[in-house]
Amino acid sequence: MRSFLDVPADSPFPIQNLPYGVFSRDDGSDPAIGVRIGDQVLDLAVLEERGLLDAALKGVRVFNQPTLNAFMARGRLVWQAVRARLQDLLSAEGDPALREDDELRDVALVSVAAVTMHLPAAIGDYTDFYSSRQHATNVGTMFRGPEKALMPNWLHLPVGYHGRASSVLISGTDIVRPKGQQKPEDAPPLFGPSKLLDIELELGFFVGPGNDIGTPITMAEAPDHIFGFVLVNDWSARDIQKWEYVPLGPFLGKNFATSISPWVVPYDALAPFRIEGEPQTPEAGNPEPLPYLRQDEPRSLDLTLDVLLDSAAMREANTEPARVARSNACYLYWSPEQQLVHHTVNGCNARPGDLMASGTISGETPDSYGSFLELTWRGSKPITLPSGEERKFLQDGDRVVLTGHADSEDADGPYRVGFGEVEGVVRPARGG
Amino acid sequence: MRSFLDVPADSPFPIQNLPYGVFSRDDGSDPAIGVRIGDQVLDLAVLEERGLLDAALKGVRVFNQPTLNAFMARGRLVWQAVRARLQDLLSAEGDPALREDDELRDVALVSVAAVTMHLPAAIGDYTDFYSSRQHATNVGTMFRGPEKALMPNWLHLPVGYHGRASSVLISGTDIVRPKGQQKPEDAPPLFGPSKLLDIELELGFFVGPGNDIGTPITMAEAPDHIFGFVLVNDWSARDIQKWEYVPLGPFLGKNFATSISPWVVPYDALAPFRIEGEPQTPEAGNPEPLPYLRQDEPRSLDLTLDVLLDSAAMREANTEPARVARSNACYLYWSPEQQLVHHTVNGCNARPGDLMASGTISGETPDSYGSFLELTWRGSKPITLPSGEERKFLQDGDRVVLTGHADSEDADGPYRVGFGEVEGVVRPARGG
Repeated sequence: MRSFLDVPADSPFPIQNLPYGVFSRDDGSDPAIGVRIGDQVLDLAVLEERGLLDAALKGVRVFNQPTLNAFMARGRLVWQAVRARLQDLLSAEGDPALREDDELRDVALVSVAAVTMHLPAAIGDYTDFYSSRQHATNVGTMFRGPEKALMPNWLHLPVGYHGRASSVLISGTDIVRPKGQQKPEDAPPLFGPSKLLDIELELGFFVGPGNDIGTPITMAEAPDHIFGFVLVNDWSARDIQKWEYVPLGPFLGKNFATSISPWVVPYDALAPFRIEGEPQTPEAGNPEPLPYLRQDEPRSLDLTLDVLLDSAAMREANTEPARVARSNACYLYWSPEQQLVHHTVNGCNARPGDLMASGTISGETPDSYGSFLELTWRGSKPITLPSGEERKFLQDGDRVVLTGHADSEDADGPYRVGFGEVEGVVRPARGG
Repeated sequence: MRSFLDVPADSPFPIQNLPYGVFSRDDGSDPAIGVRIGDQVLDLAVLEERGLLDAALKGVRVFNQPTLNAFMARGRLVWQAVRARLQDLLSAEGDPALREDDELRDVALVSVAAVTMHLPAAIGDYTDFYSSRQHATNVGTMFRGPEKALMPNWLHLPVGYHGRASSVLISGTDIVRPKGQQKPEDAPPLFGPSKLLDIELELGFFVGPGNDIGTPITMAEAPDHIFGFVLVNDWSARDIQKWEYVPLGPFLGKNFATSISPWVVPYDALAPFRIEGEPQTPEAGNPEPLPYLRQDEPRSLDLTLDVLLDSAAMREANTEPARVARSNACYLYWSPEQQLVHHTVNGCNARPGDLMASGTISGETPDSYGSFLELTWRGSKPITLPSGEERKFLQDGDRVVLTGHADSEDADGPYRVGFGEVEGVVRPARGG
């Protein structure tokens, strides 16, 4: 399939993707919902207003809004109808209603250079899982030793915890270095800027229709409740986290900032990239999950995920960001569907717009780890940047960019589906 | 001070209290905001509509709404002005605008028997602390032994974690027994209804004006950001919790339900009950908190808190609920102000309507513990109910009621300020 619009060959936003986002035009108009195609945004509020989406939406208006929550709540049949309709309107051979209407194209299409992106949803609750086996093993090895690296529960359930919804930030928001309590080895706790500021490379998803409290979402129902995916950078202050986290889990070491990419890639756009996951079978040396958590294959996703870094000095010298890690979503042991099913199995209610993230995604080799904690092995193996600077953890002025993509092809040739970027620059702690 | 309205002598809702809540009349009208006085609700949307609150509210309308968030956001000077105005309108000697207007009283006052209460706010984020020393010591003793009962961080910072906002429920909502994974001692994990369903007796507060991300709330500013208090029952499934909680903290063992009382007692209404807290000084054997956490005395609250229980059989026999514990808010080591200041010291942003709870409040004697886990010491010391039934943890049909109050007096005699109740009945797990 090809669009009538110009889409650069390496763009992660071809007609096969069509991710949703909330944007406002730089002329000051109110935020609305659009899909990205190439370097343009298609304004869905305009298409909706002109009646071009009436059949797909069954007449319910959802796009002239500052969040995707109402559309997320409509469910998978509506998402699929809208997606098919948009592909028809954007394709080189489909419905000419947009393609052959100069005035409409002029109003409905806007360059990404002329818009500001906003959070895609009002996030009711944000949950962070811990679903990469290598990450859990790495962290466990560092903190408890190799024998007790993986806790006894880890292979039986997707371990997760509640994050902070208020501090989920759209890509591009500066990250102020947090202050907090830290505990030196043989001295009383002290207060000051975190010295061990880190990132976590994660894949997140937004919940579509919710469930009533007391009524779990089953594995068969899970795909109807997952709207789409974003990249997540779960900024982490390791020194604050280490002192506070026993016994109730991470808190101030995490909740100062969590950044997400602005374009929500539809669940169905990732279908071509589904692959078999690590077998959850005794034959493979793993316990079989309890029945409620069993999922048919393919349950995994083959998505390349990169961590890029540039320092202030590198940007000054126009040096390209350095790729410090390349990971892949296939390293997740627990799938998004398993995460959602587990989350609601006790009757906990999810709501449209809830965000659930995977936890740090680390592969098996040291260049595929999704955090500096692991990449530098607690700072014992610093990374050297192209500028000659060394990094154990993040310094003020550092910019971290996470990207993700997957390649496929159809009858018209190869194409790439991607997330774009989630990025943020570390700013100095306030007040010294 | 006395109201011109009839307020029973032992009512926890005299003119000195005036808690806020969201109610709807049984005639089907939209939810609005009211204050409770005695056994009546004063409809603030009506007073606002008639212009009687214009000066206090500076003309901004906030009460004809289904949540208190807008009023919470207005800040303490407005809260104090509205509170003073309402006391003037309700007092026996103040402004006669309500007292002497039969028609207005008829429209603005409604019996609590003729209203349904709703959640007082749209809760953006819910945080649960762990601020009772005896509770932390009890739980630590059971799980780690008496030597390691209190973790090294506990006396240096208010330990807390993020809870689930979606499942915060208004008092009176049934609690469906959760299902989940449990791990028998020498067998693989199994799935089924929780056998160790418990409560936690807590005091919660709603955040007023929020803070910008990156800008902490200081101790001096904290009272301006605390709108008021409710009782919280943090229902807990101990078997689910025990298997899942290492290393990231409680999750499905908690997020199936958290119940709160409907009436938000204003911060200023509790001023008469402030008392000195446990000294946070080396002389008292405690470490002095880091400067950002230091608070002038009195920082504690003398509020009697009761846990009542009746079984289905007791209700059938018209037996009064049994009081199974009497605790007090004075057993909190970390105050609400310290909790809020700590929560934001890393730059985390709070928003109007956020809920923060204290954690289980347990006193020093076994009859003052705020959970069945502690009251029955993990089930080893069952409680005998008036019906002769024994309880280690909660059975289906059990109803738990938490109440709280404090007594004081002024020139007109003694009065009681209280929260009313937060109650819930345990229903059987769905699907057997």
